[in-house]
Amino acid sequence: MPETTPAPCAPEDVRRVACIGAGVIGGGWVAHFLARGYDVTAWDPAADAEDRLRRLVAAAWPALEQIGLADGASQDRLTLAPTLGEAVAEADFVQESAPEKLELKRSLLAELAAATRPGVVIASSTSGYPMTDMQTAAEHPGRLVVGHPFNPPYLIPLVEVVGGERTDPEAVAWASRFYDVAGKSVITMDRELPGFIANRLQEALWREALHMVANGEATVEDIDASITEGPGLRWAFMGPCLTFALAGGEGGMAHMLDHFGPSLKSPWTRLEAPELDRALRDAMVDGCREAAGDRTYADLVAARDQGVIDVLRATGRLGSTRR
Amino acid sequence: MPETTPAPCAPEDVRRVACIGAGVIGGGWVAHFLARGYDVTAWDPAADAEDRLRRLVAAAWPALEQIGLADGASQDRLTLAPTLGEAVAEADFVQESAPEKLELKRSLLAELAAATRPGVVIASSTSGYPMTDMQTAAEHPGRLVVGHPFNPPYLIPLVEVVGGERTDPEAVAWASRFYDVAGKSVITMDRELPGFIANRLQEALWREALHMVANGEATVEDIDASITEGPGLRWAFMGPCLTFALAGGEGGMAHMLDHFGPSLKSPWTRLEAPELDRALRDAMVDGCREAAGDRTYADLVAARDQGVIDVLRATGRLGSTRR
Repeated sequence: MPETTPAPCAPEDVRRVACIGAGVIGGGWVAHFLARGYDVTAWDPAADAEDRLRRLVAAAWPALEQIGLADGASQDRLTLAPTLGEAVAEADFVQESAPEKLELKRSLLAELAAATRPGVVIASSTSGYPMTDMQTAAEHPGRLVVGHPFNPPYLIPLVEVVGGERTDPEAVAWASRFYDVAGKSVITMDRELPGFIANRLQEALWREALHMVANGEATVEDIDASITEGPGLRWAFMGPCLTFALAGGEGGMAHMLDHFGPSLKSPWTRLEAPELDRALRDAMVDGCREAAGDRTYADLVAARDQGVIDVLRATGRLGSTRR
Repeated sequence: MPETTPAPCAPEDVRRVACIGAGVIGGGWVAHFLARGYDVTAWDPAADAEDRLRRLVAAAWPALEQIGLADGASQDRLTLAPTLGEAVAEADFVQESAPEKLELKRSLLAELAAATRPGVVIASSTSGYPMTDMQTAAEHPGRLVVGHPFNPPYLIPLVEVVGGERTDPEAVAWASRFYDVAGKSVITMDRELPGFIANRLQEALWREALHMVANGEATVEDIDASITEGPGLRWAFMGPCLTFALAGGEGGMAHMLDHFGPSLKSPWTRLEAPELDRALRDAMVDGCREAAGDRTYADLVAARDQGVIDVLRATGRLGSTRR
């Protein structure tokens, strides 16, 4: 039952953002919105919240200056509000980044929905709770969305946007557009999925890593090096699907799946693979073909090679591979 | 029962490398060894192998020139041998990159061990077979090791080195040292593990991605973007463990595990997590502390931020986050 009160302003016209919760993630959002030229009002119940928050923003600022600040962006445009109500009273958008506890999120989001002006979109930074579970206590659940960032939110572009069962699809569209205007890279999901997308991928890798450490199969050092010296170099600019398509040579993802498909049955991780049926094979092959667009295999190899070289150079590792 | 014939030369004195199999991976190895100034003899039974190989090396060469060639490195130092025996007869080291079929690897490695000079170390590029299973047919199994690269081997530094039950530990040490001299970044494993380390991590992520596509939960485009716009930007220079330690704020991995530990029980991926007991918690915390070394939390945050900025800039994405 979506509510229909429209947002009080267009995503392009947002001036004041309220950030609720000012820990690592909430504080990172504050830094991001300040750097993009917004007025930011923050609220956090911790006694030392203001000190910690201003320290975090100051520490992030040199990085943000390098990226390039928006016109008029300033750390002085941050206000700490004494109450939650005052923090959100004049906000055009609210980003909630409270600790990851369902009951807390539930009551906090209800309180926020009651304290904001009608129609203001409220996004939760939750790492994995479905909005459907978090919006149950709110009187105006239609404008509650998930806007899940990555740490640090002022540097990592990704934000995943998804609504709950009682979220107005307009609020999802509004939030996606707002994040885009605010300089984020948006994935809008059409359904709820525990952990969304990136966290599911990251969590699968992470749990396999924990298993290996728990079993003495690898050390923390091995795990980190295996990524930064290996696939991590490609994933900074080419995702796992297109990367694997290139492993198939000129035959692309189709050849890769035919060649390495049987290894999906191998115990290469503790996660069992899905059945590689015709539909999945086609979805992967078609998706990679679409991602490649007009680029030939040779174009993609050249782009990947240049990307790896650029990343190696940027992270100070060229020269180390010289004999 | 390790054999005791020592390698005919020290890892530092290798002049001629034989590459057996010249597909995407084998050809990538050829390019790497040529660029590092070795004489390379290749063999591949395919009719068009020489054409394909020379094309691959020529395509890779501009990238290798950018990285910086070793003194005397030249594409002219590549010879295609008409037979496997001639390819390896004078080799100081052999890299086998045949198709991923166990029986084929088994007989090929036996043939190679018989055709090389005594003591020459032979490494397999296998993506996941344990050497114990591959060395069963060889008369001199002591010098057979796994040397598992990432695609493309001429750019991605990582190589994972591990022996089988019948491998001489001296051969593992020799191979690790040789790869190091040849400009690779080496992880030497003390036990066999299906998929080694990086592939297990990568495969867990990949299988979760396949499940999501199979269930219509995410598209190929979403999956690739969720990595390149998200965690992939950090993983190019900071591994998943240290990255997650920073998500714990000043409290590091200990705080992170206490805070997000319960989410290991959440269905954020189809892979079940191990029990987060005291031993695992300590191993993760200690490993991250060791990785951090003398660097404070603030140092690590600054390094991560600079790394992300450098990677964004290197991959042409700065400016896109400006409002």
